[in-house]
Order: sequence, then structure tokens, then C-alpha cells
Amino acid sequence: MSRHHRPVIHQRREVAASRLFRIESLELEFANGNRRTFERLRNAGRGAVMIVALPDPEHVLLIREYAAGIDDYVLTLPKGVIDPGEDMITAANRELQEECGFSAARLEPLIELTLAPNYMNHRISVLMASELQESRLPGDEPEPLTVERMPLEQLDSLLATGELHEGRAVAALLMVRERLRERQELPTLW
Amino acid sequence: MSRHHRPVIHQRREVAASRLFRIESLELEFANGNRRTFERLRNAGRGAVMIVALPDPEHVLLIREYAAGIDDYVLTLPKGVIDPGEDMITAANRELQEECGFSAARLEPLIELTLAPNYMNHRISVLMASELQESRLPGDEPEPLTVERMPLEQLDSLLATGELHEGRAVAALLMVRERLRERQELPTLW
Repeated sequence: MSRHHRPVIHQRREVAASRLFRIESLELEFANGNRRTFERLRNAGRGAVMIVALPDPEHVLLIREYAAGIDDYVLTLPKGVIDPGEDMITAANRELQEECGFSAARLEPLIELTLAPNYMNHRISVLMASELQESRLPGDEPEPLTVERMPLEQLDSLLATGELHEGRAVAALLMVRERLRERQELPTLW
Repeated sequence: MSRHHRPVIHQRREVAASRLFRIESLELEFANGNRRTFERLRNAGRGAVMIVALPDPEHVLLIREYAAGIDDYVLTLPKGVIDPGEDMITAANRELQEECGFSAARLEPLIELTLAPNYMNHRISVLMASELQESRLPGDEPEPLTVERMPLEQLDSLLATGELHEGRAVAALLMVRERLRERQELPTLW
């Protein structure tokens, strides 16, 4: 969807690459004639899933894992890349079993989020999981993840203290809380 | 904050770099003895700001701009990097004038969000701006941005149609809507 004229891409080339990342340089000409060189990161484009799993309508499963980008442990939602041949639902149910030890009988796609569309093509589908039962699949984590059962009413205090800070996870949790309030499965707090 | 023992970083080296991006490889040893090689992206670490500007308690200013990462126009919040010598408030007020043509007499820090802490160190501070008045500073955009005055009650439909999808902007907008509801400046919708 665009009401604008996208810039013309005159040249596109890979300027750096590593095992996981590819960086492209784009020579762009905008509709007004202005020219710019932009850089962007490319992933494999396989898509990813992030899961808001509800053991009951008042709790959500969070994981605590080492995050190399900030060299610290983070509290966040389970997520992972969609494997070849998987659809979004299958991938979400696999990640939930690998990272949290639960499968879900009900998985509802909520939204697809981008990460930083100005310079990345990364997208992640958020799914709400319910009707959970214990089921574990082996994951590829270097050490066991900690799984925490967070009362949704603690969300605001986790945001206020800075303990929960990953933007897309914050978006997903706020959306799910609103969805549950709308369904009146959660007592409103005001 | 961490209840865990962070892995030991045995080696850390730059494996690729471009004009904007640096990619590092880390040789990690986890507390249980497992070793892994992780990659991460590094930015200059100067910090960034994202602004939720309210011309009145029922509207927010969004921008529509070209996003090279997905080669399309996106609807999102004004944001930018903190310049050397600036604090967060000054940077937010400058970006708001450059991108939206308004300055704010009131700027309240809401939260600091990370982007993808598993493999990036990028952080952005979200500020709520109010008491706006027209004031324009020249920006460095290749073409004029479109500024849209969105009724906050349209937020859910913009999310449902996929028109608004940048995770950290979605998080910021949902947080501000909740904040305004709590202040009872906005009529509750249920």
C-alpha cells in the first residue's frame, strides 16, 4: 500500500556479509530527483514467530535468556524462525514446546510486526496461544531457558522498572492484554 | 539486572563492516561449559529517540516515509539519533521540529526500548510530547515527509489492516493510549 511513488533503485549491491547478516547498499533516486545511498540489512526472509502463551486468562509465559546484543539476560517472549516447510502455526507450536515446555491447542495470529523497516526487512508474526498442555521438544539453546509465569497485571510494573524492554514483545503483550480486556476474560483494573 | 552468570566472552572480533553497520563475532562459554559462536550488530551507541506527539489528547502525529528495508512507504512515529552534545529531550524536540514541524513545551520520557537484544545493541527512548506549537527546522530527508494527524481511536483499525506495523512504534502508541486513559483525558471506549 502506498500513495507515493517509490524511489527508483539504480543500483543494489552487497557491501558486507557474515555468517548471519548481509548488508546491501542501494543507490536511490526519489520522485523529486534527489539521489541517496542507503544501506539495509537482509535476512533469509523465512519469517519468524513470537508467541504470547496464556496458561490462564490472567498469566503469560515469559522466558529469560542470554541476549548477546546487550551481553545480558533479558525477559522476553518465546520466538524463533519459521523452518522450511513449516507454516506459522506449526512453527509457533514447536517454539513453544522447545522454549517453554508447552503445546497449545489454540493458536491465533494477532499481527505481523516489522523490526526497523527503515533499514531491515525482518518481520515477525505474533500469535496468542491458549489451551496449553505440557509437552517438551528439545531446543538448540546453549543453556536451559528460565520460564516465568507472569501475572498480566504485573506488566506495567515490569515496563516501569525497565525489566521488560524488547519493543516487539512489549507491543505484543499490550495487544494481548487489550484483547483479553475486550473479551472481558480479565477483570478491568480501573 | 541478572540472576544468571553471564557467559564468558573468550574472543570478540569484527567480522564485517559497512558505512553504517558493524558485525561482531563472539566466542562464548556458558556457565554450564557449553561453547557457542554468536554474531551481533553494533551501532555507534549514541542512542535514539522516538516521539509520540499529541496535538490534543485524542490525536497523535504520525509520519509516512520511505523505508528502504522493505522498499515501501511506512506509517510510523518520528524518530532519530541523538546528536553529540544533545540530551534526550533536546534531541526529541529537534526531531519533532524537523520531521513534523512542531516543537513541544512538554516532553515526558516514557520508556527505553530495545530492538532485538539477542543480536543488536540498539536502544530507543520513547517520549510523549504535548503543548505543541508550530516550529519547523530543516531536516535531512531526501523528500518531504507526510505528517498525519491520527485519531487515537483509529489505532486498532490501523493495526488490524496492517498499515501500522513497526513493533517499537506499536508499543509506544499502545503505552501512550493506556497512559491517557489512566489520566482520563480520553473517553474510555468500553
